Amino acid sequence: MGGDHGPSVVVPAVARAAAELPVHVRFLLHGDEKVLAAELARHKAIGDRAEVRHSDKVVAMDEKPAQALRRGKGTSMWNAVEAIREGQAAAAVSSGNTGGLMAISKLILRMAADLDRPALVAGIPHSKGVTTFLDVGANVDCDAERLVEFAIMGEAFHRAAHGKAKPTVGLLNVGSEEMKGHEEVREANRILREGHFDLDYRGFVEGDDITRGVVDVVVTDGFTGNVALKAMEGAAKFMYGELKGALTSNLLATAGAALARGGLLKFRDRISPPPAAPLLGLNGIVLKCHGSATDRDFAQALKVAADLAQSGFAAEIERNMRRLPAALADTSPAAADGAASA
Amino acid sequence: MGGDHGPSVVVPAVARAAAELPVHVRFLLHGDEKVLAAELARHKAIGDRAEVRHSDKVVAMDEKPAQALRRGKGTSMWNAVEAIREGQAAAAVSSGNTGGLMAISKLILRMAADLDRPALVAGIPHSKGVTTFLDVGANVDCDAERLVEFAIMGEAFHRAAHGKAKPTVGLLNVGSEEMKGHEEVREANRILREGHFDLDYRGFVEGDDITRGVVDVVVTDGFTGNVALKAMEGAAKFMYGELKGALTSNLLATAGAALARGGLLKFRDRISPPPAAPLLGLNGIVLKCHGSATDRDFAQALKVAADLAQSGFAAEIERNMRRLPAALADTSPAAADGAASA
Repeated sequence: MGGDHGPSVVVPAVARAAAELPVHVRFLLHGDEKVLAAELARHKAIGDRAEVRHSDKVVAMDEKPAQALRRGKGTSMWNAVEAIREGQAAAAVSSGNTGGLMAISKLILRMAADLDRPALVAGIPHSKGVTTFLDVGANVDCDAERLVEFAIMGEAFHRAAHGKAKPTVGLLNVGSEEMKGHEEVREANRILREGHFDLDYRGFVEGDDITRGVVDVVVTDGFTGNVALKAMEGAAKFMYGELKGALTSNLLATAGAALARGGLLKFRDRISPPPAAPLLGLNGIVLKCHGSATDRDFAQALKVAADLAQSGFAAEIERNMRRLPAALADTSPAAADGAASA
Repeated sequence: MGGDHGPSVVVPAVARAAAELPVHVRFLLHGDEKVLAAELARHKAIGDRAEVRHSDKVVAMDEKPAQALRRGKGTSMWNAVEAIREGQAAAAVSSGNTGGLMAISKLILRMAADLDRPALVAGIPHSKGVTTFLDVGANVDCDAERLVEFAIMGEAFHRAAHGKAKPTVGLLNVGSEEMKGHEEVREANRILREGHFDLDYRGFVEGDDITRGVVDVVVTDGFTGNVALKAMEGAAKFMYGELKGALTSNLLATAGAALARGGLLKFRDRISPPPAAPLLGLNGIVLKCHGSATDRDFAQALKVAADLAQSGFAAEIERNMRRLPAALADTSPAAADGAASA
């Protein structure tokens, strides 16, 4: 029921995803049964692969997380997440209120990692693919241990979502030398360098490396990640506006732009935000699809959810997370100093 | 002598700047006197407005700051900064090694504000002008007091550099609500809100506001600022590459691009980095011009240096800085709590 368009986007998206996913993948649709039934009637091809679960209530797009929690029980969002905990669903996808989805997911599924709230992933395009970038906004204060947790979760997500066997991981910093940056990022670098985890860790990367595809996964705290993501979106929007201005600044340029229209549309599609962001660190798979998602976007999110659910994603994260206490003990600054002086 | 091109760019830049600046503005050229004399011979219009100060040595572009300090005495860079301390110059402009320029400037001029090193400013284009953005890389750990100092310095710089009587100031955060962000940014917001300073402070802004021109001056710590700046540069570079790809993807688009060429060049010029970044917080005006600066860029930096030197820049900063102790005493968290419960 969430997002700008509700069932008029979600049901066609289910039809698209059903056509591309194996027949054993099935869909639970949470929301107003009358509205959903009317939409389903227009997409007969879905057949019995979708099942409607009625709910009277919805979480409004402008509700605060605390409100969503208080009044959430029985909403379509709540029921979608609850279905994971009850073992009826392998994953949940929502275009609804982000803060509400985070709060409800955290309450119902609880955190697997020791985070304030789920970490948010963004997929940033580069010329040869997509950089997985996290945390982009949820956890403002991050110590070294949290940054290492983001590395573990982001790597597993990138493998499941993009099918690359061994994604490379970098830590965002203000330079590539070991002594650069603040204590948290230098300590996280020490821990990741020790090789306790099954990760292809490549060290520090810088802000412009995110769009260069230097590594597959770029890790940072939620403050820096949110600012960097929005700064990139802002730069892209500014450039697109300037470009439109430049291409309509005189008759010749306008004629040129008309001829180049196909190429320009291709270009705009590349910079549009990716359809779905997983909420990482929960005991369960929840994806947030942006509110203005089209049926193609939402179908893409459903496919990512199915891929995650069928992959070794959760087990891989758990395996690396179990190595964290030993890694932390091994690489305390005192131990590192001792090793250096030995 | 610095930058990719040395005197072959700097001397033509002096000729350009001399033509546009009042005749009382004069230039000291530090470097190899033979090389400089040869260049000056090609720009007779400079006349007696430039004076050569010979130096045998230069700071190399790849020298570490510590090396530059140790071996810096007698270099052209050292002498240019030293001339400020001796009262012979009102400002220094260099295309040389950034770390070296920071270290040498800090040693010779000393810091006026309580910072690790000078704060670096970037000018980010938006559709109606330029956003002054700082710190973009020098001071990684910033408490609330430092963020307030950046606000004071950035505001004075924006007025002097862009001629706006009352620039607006925002603090970079992950949301606009008062309770968002980490302790340092919330505390800086409290201090700036109290109105102790002669500043038009507008509260929190987000990453995409930098390119929207929501406020004139955007303040953040050197870690976040460096990452955000490079992320924006990376996004712009990626988009420019994609755009070129899209416009040459087929014959029609290529023909369109050829027709749109004038507009596209206008566009590229808008996103190219600004010519000069001041090193803020020193007892003196030092500007870093980028290494690949053209003579037009370097001339622009010389004009900004002259504007800063002739403006109330230093006095305005000093006046607001003197109010800092009272502001800090007034807005300690304890005092704020007291006020709230009264």
